[in-house]
Amino acid sequence: MKKVSYLNVNVTGGFWKQKLDMISDVTVDSVYDRFKETHRFDAFDCSWKEGDPDQPHVFWDSDIAKWIEGLAYSLKNKPNDKMVAVADEVISKIEKNRDEHGYYNSHFLVTGERFTDRSEHELYCLGHLIEGAVAYYEATGKRALLDIVCKYTDYVEKIFVKEDSAPFVTPGHPEIELALVKLYELTGEKRYLELSKFFIDKKGNNPKDKPLYRGCNIYYNQDECPVRERQTAEGHSVRALYLYCAMADLAYYYNDKELFEATERCFENIVNRRMYITGATGSTCHGEAFSIDYDLPNRVAYAETCASIALALFAQRMIKLCDDTKYADIVERTIYNGILSGISLDGKSFFYVNPLEIDLDFNKVNTCTENNDHMPITQRLEVFDCSCCPPNVIRFIANIGEYAYTHTEDTLYVHQFMESDSVIDGMKITQKTEYPANGKVEFTVTDCNKKQIKVRIPGWCDSFDLHYDGEAVTEGGYIVITPEDADFSFEVTFDMPVKFIGTNRRVHENAGRVALMRGPVVYCLEGVDNGSDIKNIRINPKGDFTVGEADFLVPSIIGKGYIEPHSDEFYYDITAPVEYEEQSVKFIPYYAFANRGESDLLVWILAFGA
Amino acid sequence: MKKVSYLNVNVTGGFWKQKLDMISDVTVDSVYDRFKETHRFDAFDCSWKEGDPDQPHVFWDSDIAKWIEGLAYSLKNKPNDKMVAVADEVISKIEKNRDEHGYYNSHFLVTGERFTDRSEHELYCLGHLIEGAVAYYEATGKRALLDIVCKYTDYVEKIFVKEDSAPFVTPGHPEIELALVKLYELTGEKRYLELSKFFIDKKGNNPKDKPLYRGCNIYYNQDECPVRERQTAEGHSVRALYLYCAMADLAYYYNDKELFEATERCFENIVNRRMYITGATGSTCHGEAFSIDYDLPNRVAYAETCASIALALFAQRMIKLCDDTKYADIVERTIYNGILSGISLDGKSFFYVNPLEIDLDFNKVNTCTENNDHMPITQRLEVFDCSCCPPNVIRFIANIGEYAYTHTEDTLYVHQFMESDSVIDGMKITQKTEYPANGKVEFTVTDCNKKQIKVRIPGWCDSFDLHYDGEAVTEGGYIVITPEDADFSFEVTFDMPVKFIGTNRRVHENAGRVALMRGPVVYCLEGVDNGSDIKNIRINPKGDFTVGEADFLVPSIIGKGYIEPHSDEFYYDITAPVEYEEQSVKFIPYYAFANRGESDLLVWILAFGA
Repeated sequence: MKKVSYLNVNVTGGFWKQKLDMISDVTVDSVYDRFKETHRFDAFDCSWKEGDPDQPHVFWDSDIAKWIEGLAYSLKNKPNDKMVAVADEVISKIEKNRDEHGYYNSHFLVTGERFTDRSEHELYCLGHLIEGAVAYYEATGKRALLDIVCKYTDYVEKIFVKEDSAPFVTPGHPEIELALVKLYELTGEKRYLELSKFFIDKKGNNPKDKPLYRGCNIYYNQDECPVRERQTAEGHSVRALYLYCAMADLAYYYNDKELFEATERCFENIVNRRMYITGATGSTCHGEAFSIDYDLPNRVAYAETCASIALALFAQRMIKLCDDTKYADIVERTIYNGILSGISLDGKSFFYVNPLEIDLDFNKVNTCTENNDHMPITQRLEVFDCSCCPPNVIRFIANIGEYAYTHTEDTLYVHQFMESDSVIDGMKITQKTEYPANGKVEFTVTDCNKKQIKVRIPGWCDSFDLHYDGEAVTEGGYIVITPEDADFSFEVTFDMPVKFIGTNRRVHENAGRVALMRGPVVYCLEGVDNGSDIKNIRINPKGDFTVGEADFLVPSIIGKGYIEPHSDEFYYDITAPVEYEEQSVKFIPYYAFANRGESDLLVWILAFGA
Repeated sequence: MKKVSYLNVNVTGGFWKQKLDMISDVTVDSVYDRFKETHRFDAFDCSWKEGDPDQPHVFWDSDIAKWIEGLAYSLKNKPNDKMVAVADEVISKIEKNRDEHGYYNSHFLVTGERFTDRSEHELYCLGHLIEGAVAYYEATGKRALLDIVCKYTDYVEKIFVKEDSAPFVTPGHPEIELALVKLYELTGEKRYLELSKFFIDKKGNNPKDKPLYRGCNIYYNQDECPVRERQTAEGHSVRALYLYCAMADLAYYYNDKELFEATERCFENIVNRRMYITGATGSTCHGEAFSIDYDLPNRVAYAETCASIALALFAQRMIKLCDDTKYADIVERTIYNGILSGISLDGKSFFYVNPLEIDLDFNKVNTCTENNDHMPITQRLEVFDCSCCPPNVIRFIANIGEYAYTHTEDTLYVHQFMESDSVIDGMKITQKTEYPANGKVEFTVTDCNKKQIKVRIPGWCDSFDLHYDGEAVTEGGYIVITPEDADFSFEVTFDMPVKFIGTNRRVHENAGRVALMRGPVVYCLEGVDNGSDIKNIRINPKGDFTVGEADFLVPSIIGKGYIEPHSDEFYYDITAPVEYEEQSVKFIPYYAFANRGESDLLVWILAFGA
């Protein structure tokens, strides 16, 4: 199965066109402004010296590289000459300031010894530069950055493989491994693929690779076992998921069954035991890491935006290895929930950490010490000291077209639904849809050269209507259309009722509570709509919940809640059946929370009889 | 209103006789052994020098002083010549090793400058030595320790009041203030009372008194305002409550209305907003402190045993100021729950921190860092580095008789129920009861010289039966018996049904959950009886709950619980009414938790329609 590049998919309207326009019109420039203000662009002058302010950080290059990658993808939607000029200037500075081997890092070029410490993100930064270079070349045809990263990669191959002269073998933060696969895909140079395989094969239990950072053990950066022996998803969640991306890529290109099975074990472990309903992962702030099975705290969720993105990147790669619809289901879960919650509706600000519950009354509880338990911030910020998430959101959303399709010789797979005109392997396919506002998708195909079209039936969907004048069956989670003509059309409407969702009872955090979903969208209650006592609101999952206004692209959901009357009593006898007060409750999409000022938030709602 | 000393109250049987025997037979000796092993007794040799192991800690003296105080009270129940000899030896060492001014502290005598830092617990230790001296004198007639602390106190008065030469004015940890009142009560020396008043009057917003410890602010040790301006209970909960004890004492002796009103505000703030159902307070580990109103986390409850003891000490003092039954209700809540949970049923081990929930599945959740969120230990220990709680439990329980009565010229107040023979102001009163196993108490009075006897109707009690051949009314929370003869008897039976208790809805932690109480005893579910999924068990508060075996002095409670079936699904649609599985549930008294190995624990249970 092959991917279909975003370059082949024109998103023309609906939900994702709105998001693409936001990225093009606002986010690319806004993140540029914040990175400029925080001297991340100045770092490429390589003129910092001891005593100067604003020392370039070891991973600042990756921020800019992801921004370049995101800018490149966004050009498919709209041109942005001003920002392209900025990118060109950055690239020319790298070209000018790199050393004679092709090495480039804005921090180490001005401060010290290179490749001495695997925790220092140098290969991570190179990985992002490679991804940026590939995207920028594909979008603009300019190959300056591509040439830069190829030369730098040759140097890395020399000292890590040929000379084996570096004091460590594998990088502390996986990223270059998956980037090298992209470089191979673009250039066809097998040695890039092999360099990736080298890092992957050497990963884990490697005596030359020391644990990172005081207080972290070998699980933190996936060093506890060789990759093929991996049973569970452990440690820093973004590092882990980038590693699994590369493992999936190599399983694909080398047809490596052991690698595939290891990635599959990690996937299953995550999605059945360690993932929030929003597709977010990495529940603990300690090490920004996967916790143990079923440990999914809502208020102190870590749930980094980059980890949701990384899970989508991983799941999309798994699709190419196996046509089980569960992978695209997870992509869908992340893109409408845990990823989109990471960016404000105006496109300017970001969550690094995405809580599933905010209780403002108790957000700052200590009155006599400076210490406080880790409590996520309640409003998005435009930039962070560690600002990995903002450009990651840009590059992910700007590339959303890539998630719509994959194909084989004889089959076109439709994974995600978005209004679009696409040309795939010579055939044209359009989708007309307001998905996920409703479940109707109209497909028009011309010049069909495939034997079948497989349309994913979303995992959340129990029934659908198909209008097609021809042969169609349901098989393996897909609607399988076998066309009789080169040109034809069909229409699918996935029934999209309000659903209440329970959690496996081993997730003690959610005991007695349910979440509301409609289609792929997870909903929440916010204080601004429902008062600050949302933790006490009970709903009846069998009650009447109706679709309201589409305040945030998809409809809000309106229904009845029940709450005990206010009382001054502290502890009181429950002597008679409690006479609940009714109040209207309004659910909004989780991705839209914290866009109307600071507010209480709740995904998991008390429920009668659930 | 005057107190009735424990010396006047012979506890002869029932619940508290069992506890007194445990203290006499086991705990006094066991804590001695642990303190001996940990070199706390050796410290009185004052022979430690730089380079030696086991440097005496600044507050070790207080551990031994509380142990002496507890030993003294326990002698009323049973003699203990061996431990009395130990105490005598300690006292003779203090006498020998104190300096020429009468100053004694096992740490500072061997290490350094005295009275330079108010955080160093010197006056706190003196306070406990005074309490120990008073108790030991009253129990044994031996006045060596009394003479020691009188001389030491004279020295303190000299440098803190007369000379004003100490670099601080008030101690960091209140304790001496309430101890000086006891010294006054015993000796009749008014200047001890005035020294207490000096410390209390100077407390708060005092420029010479610096905040303690890095990371703590002025709330930590109650320095944020003068005591009479205090509106709420703030900071380190034991420090706060010892302070309020002294404030209540001084309000009593000086008839100080402002002081009384301040203590009353603190009392109300605590019991209506900042107290666990068990009477435990100080919910946050950060500063071992009161948190904001309604912040009562169950799993990470701090709820120090000493703070529950201190709340009882404070409430008992308030009784003398005002005959509102609410104070004795709080004493009762603490003694049957938050205090008693601090000691194991075998009398040997202790909780410093008393969680209201243990979820073993998630007790150690981090796999990749050394960091962990504060999580209370799940089994009691015999000794701690900071081992304030064990001897505090000894002295509190050994003195339990003191909580039964107070009296005025014409009224005897019965506050707590315990099988006992007492002589009060010439009259004899006996109680025969199994309280709190059931609510029946038989009183026999001879030589009655009071105009009335007021028996507290516990706050939890909605109805009772009284058998008395004479005049009796219910008034202000008391049953008021007006005897016609000098000798008479009466019997009260407080109805003691199983009750389910809700919390004010502002305590979001307990939303949708109820606790079970029967009489004054708070119950809990333990995993050992109910399986590890107790967080998911729902009960119906209107269901049938029956009294079972008295495994732990009071009956366990048996009823039905409801739980959703086990499932492999992680997130699942709630498509039909959930078919709950029934399971028998067994509640045991909270004070008995963690006595049968490590187990899950839950006080607040999911409830249908509550």
